[in-house]
Amino acid sequence: MDTKSERALKGPQDGAQFLNGHEPPRPPPPARRLAIISWTTFSVGVNFALLAMMFVQPSSPSDWFSKARLLPQEHLKKTNGSAPCYNSANRVLCLPRPPSPRLSFSASEHLLLCSGNGHYVIEDEETGACHCHACFSGGHCEQLDPDCHLNLFHGDPTLFEEYWLTQPDAPTVIPSWQGMSYFAHRNNDYLFVDYFLEQAIRKIHGMVGNAVTEGRYIVLGVGSTQLYQAALYALASPESPSPTPVVSAIPHYSSFEGCTKFMDSRKYKWVGDAEKFKRSATKDQPYIELVTSPNNPCGSMNKPVVNGNGSVVNDLAYYWPHYTAITAPADYPIMLWTMSKISGHAGTRLGWAIVEDASVAAKMAYFIQLNTLGLSQDAQARGITLLRAIMSSYENQRAGGVERERQPFFHYGQAVLEGRWRRMRQALDNTSRFDLPEYESSFCSFLGKNFRANPAFLWLKCKAEEDCQQLLKENKIIARGGAVFGMSTQYVRVSMLDRHPLFDLLLARLASLK
Amino acid sequence: MDTKSERALKGPQDGAQFLNGHEPPRPPPPARRLAIISWTTFSVGVNFALLAMMFVQPSSPSDWFSKARLLPQEHLKKTNGSAPCYNSANRVLCLPRPPSPRLSFSASEHLLLCSGNGHYVIEDEETGACHCHACFSGGHCEQLDPDCHLNLFHGDPTLFEEYWLTQPDAPTVIPSWQGMSYFAHRNNDYLFVDYFLEQAIRKIHGMVGNAVTEGRYIVLGVGSTQLYQAALYALASPESPSPTPVVSAIPHYSSFEGCTKFMDSRKYKWVGDAEKFKRSATKDQPYIELVTSPNNPCGSMNKPVVNGNGSVVNDLAYYWPHYTAITAPADYPIMLWTMSKISGHAGTRLGWAIVEDASVAAKMAYFIQLNTLGLSQDAQARGITLLRAIMSSYENQRAGGVERERQPFFHYGQAVLEGRWRRMRQALDNTSRFDLPEYESSFCSFLGKNFRANPAFLWLKCKAEEDCQQLLKENKIIARGGAVFGMSTQYVRVSMLDRHPLFDLLLARLASLK
Repeated sequence: MDTKSERALKGPQDGAQFLNGHEPPRPPPPARRLAIISWTTFSVGVNFALLAMMFVQPSSPSDWFSKARLLPQEHLKKTNGSAPCYNSANRVLCLPRPPSPRLSFSASEHLLLCSGNGHYVIEDEETGACHCHACFSGGHCEQLDPDCHLNLFHGDPTLFEEYWLTQPDAPTVIPSWQGMSYFAHRNNDYLFVDYFLEQAIRKIHGMVGNAVTEGRYIVLGVGSTQLYQAALYALASPESPSPTPVVSAIPHYSSFEGCTKFMDSRKYKWVGDAEKFKRSATKDQPYIELVTSPNNPCGSMNKPVVNGNGSVVNDLAYYWPHYTAITAPADYPIMLWTMSKISGHAGTRLGWAIVEDASVAAKMAYFIQLNTLGLSQDAQARGITLLRAIMSSYENQRAGGVERERQPFFHYGQAVLEGRWRRMRQALDNTSRFDLPEYESSFCSFLGKNFRANPAFLWLKCKAEEDCQQLLKENKIIARGGAVFGMSTQYVRVSMLDRHPLFDLLLARLASLK
Repeated sequence: MDTKSERALKGPQDGAQFLNGHEPPRPPPPARRLAIISWTTFSVGVNFALLAMMFVQPSSPSDWFSKARLLPQEHLKKTNGSAPCYNSANRVLCLPRPPSPRLSFSASEHLLLCSGNGHYVIEDEETGACHCHACFSGGHCEQLDPDCHLNLFHGDPTLFEEYWLTQPDAPTVIPSWQGMSYFAHRNNDYLFVDYFLEQAIRKIHGMVGNAVTEGRYIVLGVGSTQLYQAALYALASPESPSPTPVVSAIPHYSSFEGCTKFMDSRKYKWVGDAEKFKRSATKDQPYIELVTSPNNPCGSMNKPVVNGNGSVVNDLAYYWPHYTAITAPADYPIMLWTMSKISGHAGTRLGWAIVEDASVAAKMAYFIQLNTLGLSQDAQARGITLLRAIMSSYENQRAGGVERERQPFFHYGQAVLEGRWRRMRQALDNTSRFDLPEYESSFCSFLGKNFRANPAFLWLKCKAEEDCQQLLKENKIIARGGAVFGMSTQYVRVSMLDRHPLFDLLLARLASLK
């Protein structure tokens, strides 16, 4: 699994290799795959949720379902978000009923039936089953495999799932006739940009105070991954006889290199290390510098290093209060943002660029048009709902609590990450194997308090001269080695954003490394 | 508008030029833009929907709303899909109530209040307004501007909106906690592919009988536009010292050239005309041939022409019963498909490739990963709902009619397009200016009858040696000239898929050309 993860960054070599630690695709035998999500014999583990339901332990799927019909319906009604529900055979069913298997819309089914460690898959009105997240098993995903390989290779932000599962109500409802046209608003200047989403983006930056949006253009993309490529396309010098160099101070985001190289474009070329480039570059040489701040992998507040006549792209994915103090609105010519790291909705693939110059914005939008003919209006609908839900979590608070009150989102996120970092530092105190970067405390204008950064990643350096990724791997922690960030193998990046039982397991394993 | 459309294919030149007939982006002054969707004085036009409501003609927005409260609620309840609704101050409101402006979820508001010619935007619980589609105006979008510029430059499939607005129930409901991870199923071989969507894709091809999927891989992309690029990436010869030539028989899809060229890749190069390439190519020269069938622009059932040792990509976007008879399941190594042309949901940006070879599938998926880190899970959720709705429109029929019965989708689509083509031929009989391709009749195994193709585009040739796009432009029809399809300016492509009042206007204008 781990070696596959490593190789995945290089891509498939001979067709046998697939993505990110997964096997090459096989045409799925439907019977076998359904079996994965069919009922297993109910195990001996009884978790808190089942206790809360005060059930005796059923012994078979059919037995279980006879009990499930007795589920506390009031609770289900209260927690299932706003999916429209009705009673059928003493069981609460949520509309629209799927004609074949799909995930339940009811948060309570995931929390109660699958212990919050899996998703409940409805097969028909009478049967369903938990589809457990990695490292969990059991009919109710109640068993955490203590020997499992902890895959913290990606920055998959599943940490936030708990917030959305437990806070009532923020479903995205898309009627069948909505968003059919290629164009969000046919007579709109912004062909593929939903006006309501644009409003919500400007409003949330205004509320948090983390970016200047007035007088700027909003360009949307399929995640900031695509917008990064759109920016390269827009900024590559058309006059230059040779490809425009692309540089970034090390350690830099590991995907920059792959995303810059994979098309083998004549427009730009990956050079990497910005400091080294600065020393060798001539005064008027064009270049594109990528600045991630807070930085991925190490959390530092980076600034451009070249300071020549090139262009700068500011990747601000993590400049939100859960990760770092907001000290001033970011104000750069090209700023990249993504839903993934705000609300945790990486799967929505929604990013935006705030762009100062009209012609750069137009070229970026033109890239999006040629590359994917715009981006999903369903993703945009989701973005509107989620950004509004985050903002309304503050409006509700200010109103002193009304119905459907939500926990203020950034306060929640900051508290969870701060707690994780406190516990991580305690765990690392138990071991003398690693060094951690230092983070200074700053005053956050949004949260109104001083705090240290709580980065999305743990950027570890092994004190001994050893391959730090390999050390973690031997301890069943799959993480990303320093080399792809432009650093030595003595460094390794570990996600801090996984689900809490897996984070706990990570702590235990790190603390045990003497 | 038209000249901008032409230039759009070449992209922005000086920053002043933007996309597809639209102005360059300007930072929107919110006040001005909201004004566009605020109430206008109710006009004198009274359309069928208002008649059906048997209202006297109100004279002001407030007057209108006092009447609107008397809307036949039964009708609203019946037609508003499954958006959960409740009564408030005698008006039906649909959940979740938006905290700030957005589109109404109620189909009846679009159909009744906006005459089916616009979308109803809710500003708050008491106010809302129609946002009219191009060429329509009036407080209820009841006025069709007879002098408007008919923009039929794109193949925007808004024709299908009427089906989804009038057929009850197929909303996509996405709870806030769903689809957060980058990975659709973390332990799935297909990292970014929702298993339920894969099932639905295989099932609908099986039902229609238009493609072999057994033993094949499904690769998803942000529309077939992205998958086309993924296929080029996967098929470009890594051994060849020079870029792999990309060819397609003319007339070929107009976007192939732009999508192949824009990244200026060293992996492949646009060559174009496949017949010409065939004559000059050496026996073992690698190449990639693109075959669109039914062809865009001209609707013909194309086959590869080079027949050498290259690769072929089959674009089968239009191989569905509304456009052409299904004569046999398509069975090619790489087949591209898209939601846009099946159900009309272009804005969802959901395409899929059916791929025979594991290593090609893996390379295509790797391209999707580097380009956009997968595709929106919200788009995938929408795809599941819509494909299932299409399939259930047949299941309901077979069951002899149950609740929530839908009109069988492909039967509906085929009938509408057949009707349009019949009227189009009649209209063109009135003029001697144009030639049309001939289409033969074939037996469709799915619909169980013989019929001629009803292509998505009208492919006109001006009989006189003139610029046919220019001729239409002078008659306020914006269409795509033959040059971008590799043909002469004597040809022009016109979309057959726009909303019906605009199609009617197209007929009238073409018939008037003596």
